[in-house]
Amino acid sequence: MDVVKIGLLGLGNVGSGVWKILNDNSDEIATKVGARLEIARVLVHNPDKQRRVSVPRGVLTTDAEGVVSDPDIPIIVEAIGCPGQDTTLARDYMLSALRAGKHVITANKEVLARHGRELRSAVTDGGGLYYEGAVAGGIPVVKVFKEALAGNRVLSIMGIINGTTNYILTRMSQEGSDFEEVLRMAQALGYAEQDPASDVDGHDAAYKLALLASIAFGHDIQVEDVFREGISRIKLEDLCYAAELGYAVKLLAIARRDGDSVELAVHPTMIPHGHPLASVGGAFNAVFIRGDAVGDLMLYGMGAGMMPTGSAVAADCIDAAHNLIRRVSPPREVRSNHVRVKPMDEMESRYYVRVLVVDRPGVMAAIASEFGRAQVSIESLIQKGRGQDPVSVVFVTHRACERHMQDALRGIRALDVVHSIASVIRVEAD
Amino acid sequence: MDVVKIGLLGLGNVGSGVWKILNDNSDEIATKVGARLEIARVLVHNPDKQRRVSVPRGVLTTDAEGVVSDPDIPIIVEAIGCPGQDTTLARDYMLSALRAGKHVITANKEVLARHGRELRSAVTDGGGLYYEGAVAGGIPVVKVFKEALAGNRVLSIMGIINGTTNYILTRMSQEGSDFEEVLRMAQALGYAEQDPASDVDGHDAAYKLALLASIAFGHDIQVEDVFREGISRIKLEDLCYAAELGYAVKLLAIARRDGDSVELAVHPTMIPHGHPLASVGGAFNAVFIRGDAVGDLMLYGMGAGMMPTGSAVAADCIDAAHNLIRRVSPPREVRSNHVRVKPMDEMESRYYVRVLVVDRPGVMAAIASEFGRAQVSIESLIQKGRGQDPVSVVFVTHRACERHMQDALRGIRALDVVHSIASVIRVEAD
Repeated sequence: MDVVKIGLLGLGNVGSGVWKILNDNSDEIATKVGARLEIARVLVHNPDKQRRVSVPRGVLTTDAEGVVSDPDIPIIVEAIGCPGQDTTLARDYMLSALRAGKHVITANKEVLARHGRELRSAVTDGGGLYYEGAVAGGIPVVKVFKEALAGNRVLSIMGIINGTTNYILTRMSQEGSDFEEVLRMAQALGYAEQDPASDVDGHDAAYKLALLASIAFGHDIQVEDVFREGISRIKLEDLCYAAELGYAVKLLAIARRDGDSVELAVHPTMIPHGHPLASVGGAFNAVFIRGDAVGDLMLYGMGAGMMPTGSAVAADCIDAAHNLIRRVSPPREVRSNHVRVKPMDEMESRYYVRVLVVDRPGVMAAIASEFGRAQVSIESLIQKGRGQDPVSVVFVTHRACERHMQDALRGIRALDVVHSIASVIRVEAD
Repeated sequence: MDVVKIGLLGLGNVGSGVWKILNDNSDEIATKVGARLEIARVLVHNPDKQRRVSVPRGVLTTDAEGVVSDPDIPIIVEAIGCPGQDTTLARDYMLSALRAGKHVITANKEVLARHGRELRSAVTDGGGLYYEGAVAGGIPVVKVFKEALAGNRVLSIMGIINGTTNYILTRMSQEGSDFEEVLRMAQALGYAEQDPASDVDGHDAAYKLALLASIAFGHDIQVEDVFREGISRIKLEDLCYAAELGYAVKLLAIARRDGDSVELAVHPTMIPHGHPLASVGGAFNAVFIRGDAVGDLMLYGMGAGMMPTGSAVAADCIDAAHNLIRRVSPPREVRSNHVRVKPMDEMESRYYVRVLVVDRPGVMAAIASEFGRAQVSIESLIQKGRGQDPVSVVFVTHRACERHMQDALRGIRALDVVHSIASVIRVEAD
């Protein structure tokens, strides 16, 4: 049986998963491909370091150039990540392998976000670029958008694509704990980074959304195009009100087609309990898609981790091997640059607004009149805890445009009787 | 721009969907493929019949041979279904197109179940067989098993893959209606066939499970290998007890690896409310997969209908066009014949058993001792409605083997105080 050699750059989380899968399931994979996939070289920084997988000493190397330019290695898996937030090394290795006509696989969303266009244009006839593991780990969402939905106009995407924030929100609502408390626990358990900003502030989800929306809509969408708001201001009290109103609060990554524009946003969102995304708990990810032909489609699974992400990278290795054997490239990715990204202040949503007020007659009327002045109409209102000072009043609005909403909030904030606006959370109807 | 011609056999539900999608989204698809996909000929029985889509008269033809053997038409979509339960016509057209080196697409599960091996072996170099639409409509479950999970050993599959039965069970539990009543309503609305046996008795789900399990496990699994039990004996009372115990009742298609054996079954199943399958309502389908690398993965969407199934067939057309342009076949499907299908009486499960008894002291003890004699241990017991005659008593057992369970049921049925065994439903723990 023929052997297809793979060069693996990096033996961290993802690299170890790929090593394990391609070795554990080696026979089954060989049967499917018609050739044996062999990881011939593994680039590491320190060959003497203790690893989670046992790789023969002779396979390990510290010579990147020797792997990337080896003519006997037609498939390169980039799994070095971004040491010190630097994507240069990964980009350079990938570019050099692509220019040498190789099939290059990565699960590195930052490299794709920063250098995607350059990498795509370096793909030669007979080579290819694959990145299923870059979004939502083991969930094959890249393949689904590229291939399974290729006949559809994708209308919208709503994704829970950051496991850390979903874990935090799930624990907060299940245990009635505060954000800071759950975050500290998640950090202690290794579910959240010591510097949690990338997850908690929505950066990670924004990177992934930019990638997904680019594939789904066929436009080159940058991470800067994505409106972004994190979960650190979500209070336990808001989760309780949300539950009472029939909603779960999730950090959603949303991309939506609206005529010739696209809306792109990552923000905490209230979704009805009956919605399939509402019950996605813990560190699970899910992507809910609406297409003009397929209707509603949801993919659910593990969005991160050595084995799930390894599963996605292994699938890319198998696809690459199929293409290599047939001497073809995967279908090219076409991207137009002509897309209007809708500015945030034009976006429409329903809103949940919790205002801290002095408990005094006339307060409601004053706030309601500010909403009215700004053309925002109120759907429902809850006031509990009479006699506290300040007291929370919760409003849920009908659909309103962000600009009007901000106008209303400015007016409300300026009222004498208003202590502060505690929370503003967007509400999805379906 | 190059044109790739497609011959469409049949213009019913699926055929109309394919026509609509490939025409509505023609420009976007052409950009992705690098060639224009054109349905050049459409085979119909009666060209004068009123259709849901408007096809130019010159495209319609009644000459099947003319379409299938046209050398300018390299892609054939078989969408004629099984007129009179007969798969011969579809098989013959497909075989003849495959032997002519064409790419052949179908959404016809019966043809695949009956003639799959013959059809696969007729694929020539440069041709291919595609059937994404044959299972779970718009949900790309075939592609996920073939490609996205190619690096995994699939451990188990649990699917809600028949929309009609899921619709019936959902309405029964939401509205508190009886099976017969909901079935009549579903028939009136066109959600269920006038002869509902294929759906209600689990035949449809068994066909689909055989196809999915064949791909997932790489074995040639026949529909006869699948144990099958339908939903017609499910009573509203059982749904109420299930809900009280924290379970939803679904018709599940289950395939599970156990060493060198596989378990294959379609039967009503109680699943805990927290399980992602439990909230799959109405006519939606979902497939819950466990892989050794990916962990748990679920795909959810519309399992039938003109547009969702059309979406799957359109994706196959696009895959076929990519392959055609590159002059390659899709990866071949490898099937071993060496698989042991576990006989039903070796399978293990927890069980829900509702027994109608004479309400009299000592009844519980008599039934419990029959369970004990057969080595089945009881986890919980509910008796309500004292004083009725007969009265329902519900038992939930720990894991037991089907053979022991059948032994227990024989013993219980023979007891004087037992009127009848009203229901036996398997219970999935996770």
